[in-house]
Amino acid sequence: VTQGRMKATDLLFSTEAMMEVLSEESFFQGMLRFEVSLSQALESAGLIPAGSSDAVARTTLGSLNLSGLAEKAALAGNVCIPFVKALTASVAAIDGEAAAYVHWGATSQDVIDTALLLQWRTALDLIEVDIRRLCAQLAVETRKYKDMVMPGRTWLQQGPPLTLGYKFATWLDALLRHLERIGQMRKRVFVLQFGGAVGTLAPYKDQGIALAQDLAARLGLCVAKIPWHTQRDRVGELAGDLALLVGTLGKVGRDVGLLMQTEVGEFLEGASEGRGSSSTMPHKRNPVSSAVLLQSAIRVPALASTIYTAMVQEHERGLGGWHAEWETMSEIFRLTAGAVKTALTIVEEGVAVPAAMRMNLERMKGVAMAEAISFALAERIGKSEAHRILERGSRRALDENISLVDGLKDEPELMQFFSEVELRRLTNPEHYLGSAGAFLDAVLAEYARSELWQS
Amino acid sequence: VTQGRMKATDLLFSTEAMMEVLSEESFFQGMLRFEVSLSQALESAGLIPAGSSDAVARTTLGSLNLSGLAEKAALAGNVCIPFVKALTASVAAIDGEAAAYVHWGATSQDVIDTALLLQWRTALDLIEVDIRRLCAQLAVETRKYKDMVMPGRTWLQQGPPLTLGYKFATWLDALLRHLERIGQMRKRVFVLQFGGAVGTLAPYKDQGIALAQDLAARLGLCVAKIPWHTQRDRVGELAGDLALLVGTLGKVGRDVGLLMQTEVGEFLEGASEGRGSSSTMPHKRNPVSSAVLLQSAIRVPALASTIYTAMVQEHERGLGGWHAEWETMSEIFRLTAGAVKTALTIVEEGVAVPAAMRMNLERMKGVAMAEAISFALAERIGKSEAHRILERGSRRALDENISLVDGLKDEPELMQFFSEVELRRLTNPEHYLGSAGAFLDAVLAEYARSELWQS
Amino acid sequence: VTQGRMKATDLLFSTEAMMEVLSEESFFQGMLRFEVSLSQALESAGLIPAGSSDAVARTTLGSLNLSGLAEKAALAGNVCIPFVKALTASVAAIDGEAAAYVHWGATSQDVIDTALLLQWRTALDLIEVDIRRLCAQLAVETRKYKDMVMPGRTWLQQGPPLTLGYKFATWLDALLRHLERIGQMRKRVFVLQFGGAVGTLAPYKDQGIALAQDLAARLGLCVAKIPWHTQRDRVGELAGDLALLVGTLGKVGRDVGLLMQTEVGEFLEGASEGRGSSSTMPHKRNPVSSAVLLQSAIRVPALASTIYTAMVQEHERGLGGWHAEWETMSEIFRLTAGAVKTALTIVEEGVAVPAAMRMNLERMKGVAMAEAISFALAERIGKSEAHRILERGSRRALDENISLVDGLKDEPELMQFFSEVELRRLTNPEHYLGSAGAFLDAVLAEYARSELWQS
Amino acid sequence: VTQGRMKATDLLFSTEAMMEVLSEESFFQGMLRFEVSLSQALESAGLIPAGSSDAVARTTLGSLNLSGLAEKAALAGNVCIPFVKALTASVAAIDGEAAAYVHWGATSQDVIDTALLLQWRTALDLIEVDIRRLCAQLAVETRKYKDMVMPGRTWLQQGPPLTLGYKFATWLDALLRHLERIGQMRKRVFVLQFGGAVGTLAPYKDQGIALAQDLAARLGLCVAKIPWHTQRDRVGELAGDLALLVGTLGKVGRDVGLLMQTEVGEFLEGASEGRGSSSTMPHKRNPVSSAVLLQSAIRVPALASTIYTAMVQEHERGLGGWHAEWETMSEIFRLTAGAVKTALTIVEEGVAVPAAMRMNLERMKGVAMAEAISFALAERIGKSEAHRILERGSRRALDENISLVDGLKDEPELMQFFSEVELRRLTNPEHYLGSAGAFLDAVLAEYARSELWQS
Repeated sequence: VTQGRMKATDLLFSTEAMMEVLSEESFFQGMLRFEVSLSQALESAGLIPAGSSDAVARTTLGSLNLSGLAEKAALAGNVCIPFVKALTASVAAIDGEAAAYVHWGATSQDVIDTALLLQWRTALDLIEVDIRRLCAQLAVETRKYKDMVMPGRTWLQQGPPLTLGYKFATWLDALLRHLERIGQMRKRVFVLQFGGAVGTLAPYKDQGIALAQDLAARLGLCVAKIPWHTQRDRVGELAGDLALLVGTLGKVGRDVGLLMQTEVGEFLEGASEGRGSSSTMPHKRNPVSSAVLLQSAIRVPALASTIYTAMVQEHERGLGGWHAEWETMSEIFRLTAGAVKTALTIVEEGVAVPAAMRMNLERMKGVAMAEAISFALAERIGKSEAHRILERGSRRALDENISLVDGLKDEPELMQFFSEVELRRLTNPEHYLGSAGAFLDAVLAEYARSELWQS
Repeated sequence: VTQGRMKATDLLFSTEAMMEVLSEESFFQGMLRFEVSLSQALESAGLIPAGSSDAVARTTLGSLNLSGLAEKAALAGNVCIPFVKALTASVAAIDGEAAAYVHWGATSQDVIDTALLLQWRTALDLIEVDIRRLCAQLAVETRKYKDMVMPGRTWLQQGPPLTLGYKFATWLDALLRHLERIGQMRKRVFVLQFGGAVGTLAPYKDQGIALAQDLAARLGLCVAKIPWHTQRDRVGELAGDLALLVGTLGKVGRDVGLLMQTEVGEFLEGASEGRGSSSTMPHKRNPVSSAVLLQSAIRVPALASTIYTAMVQEHERGLGGWHAEWETMSEIFRLTAGAVKTALTIVEEGVAVPAAMRMNLERMKGVAMAEAISFALAERIGKSEAHRILERGSRRALDENISLVDGLKDEPELMQFFSEVELRRLTNPEHYLGSAGAFLDAVLAEYARSELWQS
Repeated sequence: VTQGRMKATDLLFSTEAMMEVLSEESFFQGMLRFEVSLSQALESAGLIPAGSSDAVARTTLGSLNLSGLAEKAALAGNVCIPFVKALTASVAAIDGEAAAYVHWGATSQDVIDTALLLQWRTALDLIEVDIRRLCAQLAVETRKYKDMVMPGRTWLQQGPPLTLGYKFATWLDALLRHLERIGQMRKRVFVLQFGGAVGTLAPYKDQGIALAQDLAARLGLCVAKIPWHTQRDRVGELAGDLALLVGTLGKVGRDVGLLMQTEVGEFLEGASEGRGSSSTMPHKRNPVSSAVLLQSAIRVPALASTIYTAMVQEHERGLGGWHAEWETMSEIFRLTAGAVKTALTIVEEGVAVPAAMRMNLERMKGVAMAEAISFALAERIGKSEAHRILERGSRRALDENISLVDGLKDEPELMQFFSEVELRRLTNPEHYLGSAGAFLDAVLAEYARSELWQS
Repeated sequence: VTQGRMKATDLLFSTEAMMEVLSEESFFQGMLRFEVSLSQALESAGLIPAGSSDAVARTTLGSLNLSGLAEKAALAGNVCIPFVKALTASVAAIDGEAAAYVHWGATSQDVIDTALLLQWRTALDLIEVDIRRLCAQLAVETRKYKDMVMPGRTWLQQGPPLTLGYKFATWLDALLRHLERIGQMRKRVFVLQFGGAVGTLAPYKDQGIALAQDLAARLGLCVAKIPWHTQRDRVGELAGDLALLVGTLGKVGRDVGLLMQTEVGEFLEGASEGRGSSSTMPHKRNPVSSAVLLQSAIRVPALASTIYTAMVQEHERGLGGWHAEWETMSEIFRLTAGAVKTALTIVEEGVAVPAAMRMNLERMKGVAMAEAISFALAERIGKSEAHRILERGSRRALDENISLVDGLKDEPELMQFFSEVELRRLTNPEHYLGSAGAFLDAVLAEYARSELWQS
């Protein structure tokens, strides 16, 4: 079998870059980074002999003997314990006494939580870059399709019209809120975990907090008021915000999948070579990107609920809840990255089909615009009477398969005020867009503001 | 059956005040408020005849004929449609023409979403008040028990000591973050829903946005950049933040339940009359409040995931996803209110049992403090040798059921540096608390800051 | 406010009959029935004085003083404790000594679990009756629409055709499996809970098992091998099977919602008075039943996961997990009943629109049947060459908006074997249904078998 | 980095054998097996030229050129499409014309669903073998500890006693039900998927069903009444039954974790080299196996809910729901295998500590056995009076920290009937076990029956 390192579903549901960030190797690098920084902070505080951190700092992942690590982790209950043993052995080979100070005073969870935070921060950076790209592209498309009229749809039934640009603007509006949430979350979430066995940093006597501050600075993390080994709202917030984002993107997938139906055909996923082909039907173009978005929107909510459920962690360090987070968070990041990238592909490569939009608008023969005439007529004869006339005309038009205007021809109370030409103008979808353009502009203005504010 | 209005589980899992806020009547009041405000805004904008809003404003819920409402709602798919019919009939009885302008240009979802937001805002206010009370009480208890030493526990095994005040401080620290999140969320979430059939406010031509601004002001809500009928991240954020909060409180319930075990007995739920009694065992005092907290922490995560799953809503107004939110959000608020109130009861009425803490600390015969001697000895003979000596002594103490100090007596390398008295001082839990007090103070300082900032 | 007893969402998402079954009153009746049967079994075993059960048996729910019950339940942690007190008081008013033997040796959980099982069994009976009705109706419709050809759809794209009857048969096939599961589950699930404080029935010495058997017989329940206070797989199986059923029905809702789209229109929900009307758009008919089905399919999976999560119950009787089941199971039954009833409405009242099916089939201009010609041609010139020719023809047909047969006219390798008439016959959807009819017949035969076997 | 093929969490949360079964290579073998069997069935039915299947049957996974497969799968939306291309190319190199008949008439979902079923069946076999081992071991331990008395616990408070054997019997009882469910499920779930593009097997004209029967026989699978591409209750049932099993095992983990607490210490996980060691505290033995069980019981419920949510699949083949199943089912199997194996380790290696049980029983000074005296006394003076006396005595015993018998000494109404010796006998936990032994025997008898019936 001549496959590469990625599984088929890795590239379908995630991205190669995210898979690298979430790799076991990248996690080990994080643990090593914690241990190096801890040694340096300890030395700097005079808590361990001068020079003790050198051997640690010179150790590379490649130099560690990690054979049998998985087996040992299965016995120990986490990978940090055998990892620190391997690290200590490696340091000992360089400097015997320095080895005695490896991991000095820290607990496994300090190392693992912090290494995970470093991983998750890089992962979130990747995702945020792609959200920004998606916003930028959506802003372009919103402007581009500002006037392309298409049917609005409620309960999967056609209603009054809107524009493709308006539809994009509603997606963009939601994404800007996601960016705002991510911005507010960072300081609250990316906070060093460092408390020792039960969160008191007892081995360091009264130097614990100063040491924590130095260590946090070395790792570029914020400082906690108090260790948070079993206060997991930080992890939960991260999971929840990503689940929200995936929900928004799932909605994009649903809409595009529906618009791409054979019978609708108003917006199509891009047709690059090999994309969406069928194993049996040569004519088919499957909405693969929509399927990926829907897939993630089905899976991530439950994964987020796992993180919430896992928050009930016992005493100073819990039993099982912490373990439940590791792979679940990885999976949430993995699927979110894939979802953002897939949405970007849709927006970048998707094709609008105005002819289909027009054809579908005509299908209703103006009945979706009955409201427009009703409002105009109400100004003359009151709303209740106007509504009754339009109801009668709409029903006739649908029953006889004629246009609304034709269905209204025999209504003298209406026809005394309006000519057929005026009625046709009123039922022209382009003239019944209300504040669609103004709303769209408000979102673009917000996008412009957010760009300034965020960079 | 002579029961009152509340079911047994309503008062066990929620509060009477929250049940009132979430009642169908309270929701109908919200819908009525929307319609009244809309009429007034329409009149003020000159979109409907002067005086049209008076009859609407004079209508009360009690005056509406709502018989058969549930049956009609089941046919129509939502309760707004028959509600507006009943309202229109009621207005017509006062002012025939005014009736024609009831609900003018709005869609059911505008009314229902906004009425729900009004309900949820009041519900969140109730919850926030109780979180603040809980924080205040926790701050008091944190200070009070600052020096009450108890065993720390990891993986349900005793480790080094901490204080009861420290434990409370970790809860308080998390709750302050929840308040911060709620504060940041309000402007993003409590935003008027108003878009008409497909979100364009087409009936109002170019006056839609001004009308929306006026309507929002009348309801005390923020204004959306663009209608959000199928962009449900606002609802999801609310659900997620409450799930996070419940997770934090579930952890409190787990800890108290564990501390109250017959064999631990370090902290007991309050014993007011009838609380926690058993139907078979007269001597028993059940941790009822802990059970309630754990119950909510098992249920709310899944309910939040429902809201995330429901985010995938079709086109301009969706099919099923929106419906899935209504009762689910109610249930989340209902359970969260009960959880906060229950946690407050625990903290207010709970009883610390220092004798049990001391007895449990002694159970380990100093072995949990081995680290302390190890660190002291390491300064003389290096960490690796010190660790080996302490490991040997710990094992001997546990095997022979003697104290750690006694287990170390035959270690000359240790005894040459330390007297027995010094060793006993080192293994005194009160002397091995590290930064516990400093961490606790940092949380109290943050609490003090937050109080200023929030009020 | 002149509403009835049901809330609007009760009738939209559930049924009146199910709401009665799930009422607090019905649950209290179950607790009373347990206590009466227990008294009678105790008396019959000679464990309490002869005649002691009479006063209990004469007590009715209406005669109990249940005022303040909710408040007391909130303190006690469950409603059984104050309920038994009220019952005891009521019995004491009739027969002082008999009151001493009320609830004799049982624990709250015995009473509550058993009362819930009695409630759930009635609830499941209601649901099963409606599933059988749904199956019967589907069998009728399957036969009726056996030959009504419509487009098959994969990934929301048109593929080869099938029949409406075939579609119904796939739903029926799944429902027969659900009935089979329910049948297999009943003996495993509806099992008396009776163990006393910790499951040993210690107060009855060696008479516990005989007593349990008598009690089970009186309640029409099966007998457990051993009490199952904290072995909750029975509850989980019930929840899981209902979630599966709701999943199947959610798929029905999705399909009908999609078929009812303005642009598809092949199958419509029934249009009884008031059903699916819009508050703004008089021409609209909303797929309300589809929305209800989708709503339940979004909510029930998460509720089932709550029951699974709650299975982790401590020791002999747990802390919180048991509490988490009560309302969650009620909600699952409530929504499932509504879903089955709603699906029944769809199948009974829904309207097939063959004209729309034909029009949509023609939309593909025969390209969906390319496979048919390809297979016929392959018999002459091999599959690979045949596939290439048909691919070319399909592409041309789609590009030039002509029929597949026209797109193939210039393919001499094909035309030497087939006349245009033959090609048109091959691409006639009615001739490309393969085993659709035979599959459908197999499902109907299974249905016939199941009817015999189940009644 | 010199790691092996397994990640640390693979061996901690799952087993090496299960990881092999779930590997991508094993899945590819399943797809190949489908294609080979299909070729043979087609040839046997005369649907493709004689000899066409030889080249397919001679193809091995190793001979396929799968480079770039992941990238192609990401474009195509599933891995079957590029896999079939690679297979076709490989067959073509052997027999040009045979290549034309590879995958003939099947659809990607036929191949993937069937390959997954083959994988899942092997996975379930592995799990079932371990459940049977676990049952056998539990039967041994149940018998062994039939008379080892320990405290019963409700709400985490001590109640009347039971035996360790009884506790094991309740676990065994639940596991026997899981085996029964798995037995009933197999025929319903392991059913060939084979329907072609939309489930009609149209390319095979009227030979579809016969072909499906032959294909199913070749793969050892059952035959469906009708293809089930979008009827996913089979997948859901599998997920649900595994979630139930994990729930039962999570309860084992919770109980063992609680029993192993420093303050309880009645049952300890085995202490093989390296198991449960701490990175900071040399004296600690962490309940690693309990943590693993709790971890899986937190995660699998949500994963099962994902499968339920994914059941809503559109028309003949769905959009996203199917995709959501793949990795989720894998994860459920992965975690379930780990949970069963971990529970087996606990039961095989765990250590009962009767001294701790005795000590903890004494902690209550007989108060937990108040019920026993109460029942004995009631026979003389009626239950109500007896209860009052015992309540008074219990309270006194707890308040004055004396034994229940001492607390009762001044109750003349009691002492006239019983000597102190008799009272001590009554409050001896060994004499207050009721039907514990009989229940335990009933479970062992059921186990014996099930062994015969299952093999």
